[in-house]
Amino acid sequence: MEAASFTRLSSPRTAPFSVTNWIKHPIPNKTNLSFRNSRSAAICAISERSSGSNTEGLLDSKVETILDSVKWDSKGLAVAIAQNIDTGSILMQGFANKDALEKTILSRKATFYSRSRSSLWTKGETSMNFINVHDVFLDCDRDSIIYLGKPDGPTCHTGAETCYYTSVYDTLEGSKEGKEERLAKTTLYSLEATISKRKEETETLPNGKPSWTKKLLLDQELLCSKVREEAGELIQTLLDNEDKGRTASEMADLLYHSMVLLNLKDVSIEEVLEVLRKRFSQSGVEEKNSRKKN
Amino acid sequence: MEAASFTRLSSPRTAPFSVTNWIKHPIPNKTNLSFRNSRSAAICAISERSSGSNTEGLLDSKVETILDSVKWDSKGLAVAIAQNIDTGSILMQGFANKDALEKTILSRKATFYSRSRSSLWTKGETSMNFINVHDVFLDCDRDSIIYLGKPDGPTCHTGAETCYYTSVYDTLEGSKEGKEERLAKTTLYSLEATISKRKEETETLPNGKPSWTKKLLLDQELLCSKVREEAGELIQTLLDNEDKGRTASEMADLLYHSMVLLNLKDVSIEEVLEVLRKRFSQSGVEEKNSRKKN
Repeated sequence: MEAASFTRLSSPRTAPFSVTNWIKHPIPNKTNLSFRNSRSAAICAISERSSGSNTEGLLDSKVETILDSVKWDSKGLAVAIAQNIDTGSILMQGFANKDALEKTILSRKATFYSRSRSSLWTKGETSMNFINVHDVFLDCDRDSIIYLGKPDGPTCHTGAETCYYTSVYDTLEGSKEGKEERLAKTTLYSLEATISKRKEETETLPNGKPSWTKKLLLDQELLCSKVREEAGELIQTLLDNEDKGRTASEMADLLYHSMVLLNLKDVSIEEVLEVLRKRFSQSGVEEKNSRKKN
Repeated sequence: MEAASFTRLSSPRTAPFSVTNWIKHPIPNKTNLSFRNSRSAAICAISERSSGSNTEGLLDSKVETILDSVKWDSKGLAVAIAQNIDTGSILMQGFANKDALEKTILSRKATFYSRSRSSLWTKGETSMNFINVHDVFLDCDRDSIIYLGKPDGPTCHTGAETCYYTSVYDTLEGSKEGKEERLAKTTLYSLEATISKRKEETETLPNGKPSWTKKLLLDQELLCSKVREEAGELIQTLLDNEDKGRTASEMADLLYHSMVLLNLKDVSIEEVLEVLRKRFSQSGVEEKNSRKKN
């Protein structure tokens, strides 16, 4: 079963196993689920499929070098932050020890060290909401780690998309009692949330405060003509050699109006970015290959 | 001088000082720079400008409640992650103690506790590259903090935009020696970097491997017709009630082609998002007000 899965990912004729191929073609999920908590098991899981004779040793030593380069604290830990590769949302933060980082690197599932339970835990091992790691970054001091990945579902144990939904300034404003909690969102996703809110208002408060967004949501002809117009104005800034500020402003207009259209189609920016990643990003090589084979 | 700055931000006649106003109109930068390292100084710096009699007490107790709600570890610390509010980039990670979090909340400059120097430090106090905090989030366990803000310049002491520029998988691939380091970037910014790379190649390797992006970069007429065409196709998915996947795909096309145009105009996605934030986001209220007054 595992061999069959591997064959699908990498044909031994055209792409013999190498560290590079492994990086582009991570171990299939089923292997990850039965991944045992030891360095040698992890290395064996990969080298079993290798046609090269010294891949195990090579990989072993490279991973070891990386693990040894981390500045583990007095308890053998470093901070590990899981971030959504498409949206940039910080999903959760935990700690990693050497084994947790190694397991993450080899299994591509975000894995942490639980200080309360004194054991490794892979996010998703009970909820099945794994964080599928596309890249791992170390900071300049080598004591802080980013797991850049794609979550299978909500990350927080409360069911929230991320663990960060308590705003200090909302709490200080003191007027948020009864209001729903607000996830930490960056600009694009705050705007997306605002558009969604306006959409709800057109349904629940049709006579409420008017807004341009609501007007667009209720008038498809106007919306379509605005998207077309803003695309034209963006183009014009190039043709007329207008200043940078003008281009940024027209692109902002085009993005906003397009996002209103996305809302009407119930499409999230995250879905659009996923399409872009699969088409263009370097870490999307495996997706491209798998598309060719399907 | 400080009083004058404050008057610009909030007229005492029309908007008497309140915790809410303070949240929308943070203390001007000059005050922040001379911000002293003590709780009472911070509270006084705000309440001096207050026309209400018990603002100090109210604010004091609310901030205290928040600070006490954090689950500080045995050393009195919690993880603090600084994130770019527009791009979502994780800029750096440090630790905060109670004083550091309080100073961040009140001064709106990301402040940490240095474990090596056993003292507070505000990012930017020597480099002037402050991180201007728009919001602060606590996680579900209340032991991890996000400072969501806008950096004045590069965050890393090496001059890099962020501290995360060492990819574990690049290192494992082993072929990156001599190659430049690669910042941890999410999808949109990876694509932006790829487009920039293609632009460089059109200049340094004009006869190199052809690509669609290069073709667009070298042919403005083609690029403009594609942006117009993709906007039309996005609109068509709404008018023809096509499926969600089609809309996501057309939006991805529009975004990509628009980003090629942005590259030709030397405009970054971050600049576009800054425009959007100032226009639309809830935390942009102060910018809107300041625009009205200018």
